Amino acid sequence: MTETTMEQIVSLAKRRGFIYPGSEIYGGLANTWDYGPLGVELLNNIKEFWRKKFVRERPDNVEIDTAILLNPSVWVASGHVGNFSDPLMDCKKCKSRVRADKHIEYWNEKNGTEIFPENWAGELTPSDILLKFINGNNIKCDKCGALDWTEPKAFNLMFKTEQGVIEGEGAKIFLRPETAQGIFINFKNVQTTTRKKIPFGICQIGKSFRNEITPGNFIFRTREFEQMEMEFFCKPGTELEWFDYWKNFTYSWFLSMGIKEDNLRMRDHEKDELAFYSNATTDVEYMYPFGWGELCGIASRTDYDLKQHIDLSGKDLSYFDEPNREKYIPYVIEPSFGVQRTALITLCDAYNEEKVGEDDTRIVLKLHPVLAPFKIAVLPLVKKLSEETDKLYKKLITELGWKIDFDEVGSIGKRYRRHDEIGTPYCVTFDFDTLEDLAVTIRERDSMTQDRIKIENLISYFREKFNF
Amino acid sequence: MTETTMEQIVSLAKRRGFIYPGSEIYGGLANTWDYGPLGVELLNNIKEFWRKKFVRERPDNVEIDTAILLNPSVWVASGHVGNFSDPLMDCKKCKSRVRADKHIEYWNEKNGTEIFPENWAGELTPSDILLKFINGNNIKCDKCGALDWTEPKAFNLMFKTEQGVIEGEGAKIFLRPETAQGIFINFKNVQTTTRKKIPFGICQIGKSFRNEITPGNFIFRTREFEQMEMEFFCKPGTELEWFDYWKNFTYSWFLSMGIKEDNLRMRDHEKDELAFYSNATTDVEYMYPFGWGELCGIASRTDYDLKQHIDLSGKDLSYFDEPNREKYIPYVIEPSFGVQRTALITLCDAYNEEKVGEDDTRIVLKLHPVLAPFKIAVLPLVKKLSEETDKLYKKLITELGWKIDFDEVGSIGKRYRRHDEIGTPYCVTFDFDTLEDLAVTIRERDSMTQDRIKIENLISYFREKFNF
Repeated sequence: MTETTMEQIVSLAKRRGFIYPGSEIYGGLANTWDYGPLGVELLNNIKEFWRKKFVRERPDNVEIDTAILLNPSVWVASGHVGNFSDPLMDCKKCKSRVRADKHIEYWNEKNGTEIFPENWAGELTPSDILLKFINGNNIKCDKCGALDWTEPKAFNLMFKTEQGVIEGEGAKIFLRPETAQGIFINFKNVQTTTRKKIPFGICQIGKSFRNEITPGNFIFRTREFEQMEMEFFCKPGTELEWFDYWKNFTYSWFLSMGIKEDNLRMRDHEKDELAFYSNATTDVEYMYPFGWGELCGIASRTDYDLKQHIDLSGKDLSYFDEPNREKYIPYVIEPSFGVQRTALITLCDAYNEEKVGEDDTRIVLKLHPVLAPFKIAVLPLVKKLSEETDKLYKKLITELGWKIDFDEVGSIGKRYRRHDEIGTPYCVTFDFDTLEDLAVTIRERDSMTQDRIKIENLISYFREKFNF
Repeated sequence: MTETTMEQIVSLAKRRGFIYPGSEIYGGLANTWDYGPLGVELLNNIKEFWRKKFVRERPDNVEIDTAILLNPSVWVASGHVGNFSDPLMDCKKCKSRVRADKHIEYWNEKNGTEIFPENWAGELTPSDILLKFINGNNIKCDKCGALDWTEPKAFNLMFKTEQGVIEGEGAKIFLRPETAQGIFINFKNVQTTTRKKIPFGICQIGKSFRNEITPGNFIFRTREFEQMEMEFFCKPGTELEWFDYWKNFTYSWFLSMGIKEDNLRMRDHEKDELAFYSNATTDVEYMYPFGWGELCGIASRTDYDLKQHIDLSGKDLSYFDEPNREKYIPYVIEPSFGVQRTALITLCDAYNEEKVGEDDTRIVLKLHPVLAPFKIAVLPLVKKLSEETDKLYKKLITELGWKIDFDEVGSIGKRYRRHDEIGTPYCVTFDFDTLEDLAVTIRERDSMTQDRIKIENLISYFREKFNF
């Protein structure tokens, strides 16, 4: 475990306008969250940094943006209608409902044991085997103590809705549970219109929805969340090379955002743990305040998805390799990220309570500058200097185009602390000397050291500092 | 009408990877659209330019990002559960279903008349009056010719879904039909955590969903769409000044994106046309290929929304004005934009077929550079120069951080045309002389003029060109 607690993160997030409980004035709505002014900057910075590294700097990759509401056949082909479900069972006595597989894990944890059914496959273990194991091992209801379970029933995790204006006769459709399938069904359209040659990747950033039975741990698992996914299409036989490539690329991406290496690890899936269509999968895990947990996944998905869509749609989604006069269905490597989960680890990783001086403590969010909601805070030493300082502030906004704060309330020390707490990397103080020497004091967040810089050099000074 | 037809826009959008029909391989899904690599850049550029002008450059405004799934009480308070509906009626003979108010408008159009029920209020006209008027004027079914209508019934436009794992017992919730309410319910949270003083605005960009009976006209009206909304909170009594301010600001925003003034107009709502809570509303309209239609709206909403939420939630959402020791419920000005609709007008406005030379025509998309999917295309004159050109290409991407294309296929003339068609403002050609004089040819899209620029000056040359 880390020293930082989830309570510290939740409290800072609420207090400073990163993240508020969703629908709070109406008592909330089961684990939904709204992102305040600092939160939306953090989310946008994460998305932009992903886009920069996975799309803009990559001539081989493009980005698309497909609808949340898709033809339901998409989810038949992908297997989500048939298989995207949790095994839920009810205690007949007290009516409480639990996930059978999680209940076995919980029981093990409680007893410090590691006993599982044969051929254990988590939520994919057949329900009769789950029930037999539970009854055989006397795994009771945690609420009322009874051992009287219904047989686990598959509960599909897709949100359903109806489109069209005739109640009961509209099209029954789903909110997408992942962005990936929107990419697969557009593979041919994208390849044809961009004239991309394999290998190339199609990326997408967007919302997905899963009706999870156990959302929780703040923004770690929510029913509504944003994904950043890439499907990288390559020639069959080269997929494991590309798998390694994107695995390392993904890991480096987290490091380049300043995430501590000690808090990251990769976990390759064992052979018997792999989805049946995958020949390699790795989870990147992070040391959350509640322990190690999944952060993102990289999967070699073979040609499974494209083949499924070819079968069900009857369309030809194969690729013609002109130089080699060869036709094939591409194999696919998929790195899949959650935006909110990434935001959570950047907050956990950056949070520090530091002793400064004898009996003083500061909270400092040591966010990588690329992620910081405010890149700079501009502070007049005293209110008398506000008008002059405001001119500098506006100049910086216009010329740099970044999110910059202007803060004139309270002592300079208080303002530094306020910006430490939200991760602003640099504070620029305009004082009385500035009127004479046309220079300002720049105070750096982590080292708390100060620099005196001429105003005429400020733009190039900051451009260099923020070049990633 | 403009000379450009919707067919030309749809065809270009599909051919070049701006916009594909949604779920196309499965025969589509009623007027949904997926955005290809160029489309996603266009959408992102629109959102970024809005964010720049409404948020980043405005110390008085902040941005938030609230959930799509909100507590259903939000929609009770906002009036959407009670009133957000269309009056639908069925022909008893052929079972076809129409919107009663639209059917009256259509009948007028067909007959070149302008006859309406007394106190005509469009879809808000009471249904018995609609039916009486329809029967009285002999307004028949357009499909089968019968005059045998059911009484119009209110059909709510919100998508419904169920959250939670007990089928039939989960919480019945809605997909948000607008982003605005997510702002109102967070007014207090935002004001407190940012310590903003009134007047200030809270902005939001995000998806909304409306189960429209008549989606259509390409991406003009879709059931799933993205909004950019601002709620600007001001002191009661100052709202009409602010209304004018944001009306002009909005209009200027469109002009600054290069939209032709001839294709824009403002339409102030008449007194009897205003929603009951509004004391001023204006639509910005655009001359689409199908005629004048709504583009965006600016509404003075008084304190209606905040009051509704105060009443239903019992929470205090008023504002305390410290300097004046005065407590009040702020009034609100709301400029509301659709991202996709804005994308549609930028395409329509920019589309040109131009005669060049004797019997040659080029399609050129005269997009404002800030909107262009590719800012620059880098072209080796011949493939032999590709390796050298690639270095320049990578240098530009890294130093400018923009979306830039590298294109080596076909003659230079063909490549210029290809980039004209997708609106790339500048093509940079690397030729044999470049190896000697370290300069490249820059060809401008609209004028087709060429410039010779030293490579060492390229970054500053482009930074200046793209400074908006």
